[in-house]
Amino acid sequence: MSQELRERGLELLNRLHGGHTGAAMVAEMAGICPAFADMTIEWAFGGVMSRPGLDLATRQLVLVASCVTLGSAMPQVRAHAEAALAAGVTRTQLVETILQLTFYAGGPAVRNSLVALKDLLEEENGQ
Amino acid sequence: MSQELRERGLELLNRLHGGHTGAAMVAEMAGICPAFADMTIEWAFGGVMSRPGLDLATRQLVLVASCVTLGSAMPQVRAHAEAALAAGVTRTQLVETILQLTFYAGGPAVRNSLVALKDLLEEENGQ
Amino acid sequence: MSQELRERGLELLNRLHGGHTGAAMVAEMAGICPAFADMTIEWAFGGVMSRPGLDLATRQLVLVASCVTLGSAMPQVRAHAEAALAAGVTRTQLVETILQLTFYAGGPAVRNSLVALKDLLEEENGQ
Amino acid sequence: MSQELRERGLELLNRLHGGHTGAAMVAEMAGICPAFADMTIEWAFGGVMSRPGLDLATRQLVLVASCVTLGSAMPQVRAHAEAALAAGVTRTQLVETILQLTFYAGGPAVRNSLVALKDLLEEENGQ
Amino acid sequence: MSQELRERGLELLNRLHGGHTGAAMVAEMAGICPAFADMTIEWAFGGVMSRPGLDLATRQLVLVASCVTLGSAMPQVRAHAEAALAAGVTRTQLVETILQLTFYAGGPAVRNSLVALKDLLEEENGQ
Amino acid sequence: MSQELRERGLELLNRLHGGHTGAAMVAEMAGICPAFADMTIEWAFGGVMSRPGLDLATRQLVLVASCVTLGSAMPQVRAHAEAALAAGVTRTQLVETILQLTFYAGGPAVRNSLVALKDLLEEENGQ
Repeated sequence: MSQELRERGLELLNRLHGGHTGAAMVAEMAGICPAFADMTIEWAFGGVMSRPGLDLATRQLVLVASCVTLGSAMPQVRAHAEAALAAGVTRTQLVETILQLTFYAGGPAVRNSLVALKDLLEEENGQ
Repeated sequence: MSQELRERGLELLNRLHGGHTGAAMVAEMAGICPAFADMTIEWAFGGVMSRPGLDLATRQLVLVASCVTLGSAMPQVRAHAEAALAAGVTRTQLVETILQLTFYAGGPAVRNSLVALKDLLEEENGQ
Repeated sequence: MSQELRERGLELLNRLHGGHTGAAMVAEMAGICPAFADMTIEWAFGGVMSRPGLDLATRQLVLVASCVTLGSAMPQVRAHAEAALAAGVTRTQLVETILQLTFYAGGPAVRNSLVALKDLLEEENGQ
Repeated sequence: MSQELRERGLELLNRLHGGHTGAAMVAEMAGICPAFADMTIEWAFGGVMSRPGLDLATRQLVLVASCVTLGSAMPQVRAHAEAALAAGVTRTQLVETILQLTFYAGGPAVRNSLVALKDLLEEENGQ
Repeated sequence: MSQELRERGLELLNRLHGGHTGAAMVAEMAGICPAFADMTIEWAFGGVMSRPGLDLATRQLVLVASCVTLGSAMPQVRAHAEAALAAGVTRTQLVETILQLTFYAGGPAVRNSLVALKDLLEEENGQ
Repeated sequence: MSQELRERGLELLNRLHGGHTGAAMVAEMAGICPAFADMTIEWAFGGVMSRPGLDLATRQLVLVASCVTLGSAMPQVRAHAEAALAAGVTRTQLVETILQLTFYAGGPAVRNSLVALKDLLEEENGQ
């Protein structure tokens, strides 16, 4: 069962965040806390994000909204914006998701998130 | 222009949150800060939430995600869950949106939000 | 020195929050953590809030702004709104302080704070 | 494997929070999101909290510190204070843990948490 | 009306944050979300910050307090400290505003904000 | 009395964070807000952290937990992890403390904190 969660999680992680993300996450945590990589892969990706009932594109927008609201999770805003694009979300939908939060998460978090998104899109165009 | 924003905002507010919400909001703020009701109606609803580029149902899920993450905005989790249902979101999609945030907003905020959603759904069924 | 801080703190606490606040705070904490009452009286009131360089009225508005932004500190929004009025702040200045934060602390925190302020003002008028 | 996690999680949950907590949590979530109860029992209790390397008493103080800092998780401050007592933490250690956070989580969160702890201790004494 | 808000907002933005800030903000957002620049200029500056009832200097101190409390908005602490100086606030008033928050926003946010203010003041002196 | 608090605070600060930390803190704040250094040394270290009733090692884990939960206090996560090691906490206890918070402070804060801890440990090994 855990093996099934792990395979499903790794497949989804690599599909959304790029082909070597799972291996990179395992390597990053190897020297400090392997259990956190396991938990992210098996539980967050294999367990929660793989559930039916809400499509992947909307899940990514929901995660972008949560990370914008945290205020201190700008690398994660970028990572889930990238995953959203991989799940078929348009650039406009991403911009509108962040803009929608101005009245909730506040201007500083929204501005910093829009700049992070702009950087991501410019790097992708530059490739 | 401002009049157009106000009419569009009021119409959307009443459609999503129930037919007298605009009037109730104006009344609530009348004695303390009418400008906040104006800003909510004209700017948040007429200006931001009415924009094209992201459908209303997804906007509500994004707002639920933001309010869950704030942790202290349980009445607003409930209000936007109600608006999400009015915009055609299913109960399952709402539950999955909140559950998806366990790894981001934390268990306490998710648990309190699921209880708020449960109360809302039970009251709606009881009517 | 500590005695001086305590007397200065108690005097300021009672002046801003009502004549028995210091005693009530000491009594509330007596059974659980007297040191927290000491710290609030001596350090927060006698040490920080009594400093020159910024007038008391502005200090209270700054504290209202911080408590609105915390989102979960509504009893403290009310308490510092009360202290602001005692320090000569007008009702309009309080409303404007909270409204100013809509773009920073977000609509839910601002709305909940305005309602807390409205309740306070109505109770004061009703006396 | 998942069955083992569940049994270990349920046993720990009931030991720390009282003998019917697992069943109550399953019942509470039954009508809204059973997966959240599963995740709490299997992952948070069976997976994370059961790990070696840090004793249960310290884990509970760490969780109290996190919930105090969240500011909006007062019911969870109380629940983990209760679990800390069940894990052998003294009342003094709990008070010192919360007081230590005054310079980090801020006075409002610390004051609200001390009041929640006081209520808990008085109810336990009253039984 | 919207044109009037925009002109008033731009004038205030440039007065408080330096003569090319409005143009820079429009340019920064041009490639990602022009509406956020519009909203900041027209609504936050032309609509809210231009209101009577609270002087500009106090508004800036209130915004500094909110950004310190957010914890993750250090660039905005600096920007509003700069605007506060432009509105006639003294360096001492700024320091006292941030120090006052130690008991509310916590030591880490206050320390990071004081360092940001120190950097700003040293750069201004170096010019 | 205040002199006693200061000496006790300085001694503890230097013991936990390295022999010149007190002097460095005083120097850093000298040009901007000496009172904040005084408050940290006398009140936070000499007053709160020196209290009996909870051992120093656990106090540091509690502070790590609070700073992880704040999300925006990564330099402070690192500083208190360093102090925890100096107070006799093991590397495993630190990792478990941070991992334990995944369900409370959220994955982004936990991941960023684990990376900060990894950097600290690698630098210490490299010396």
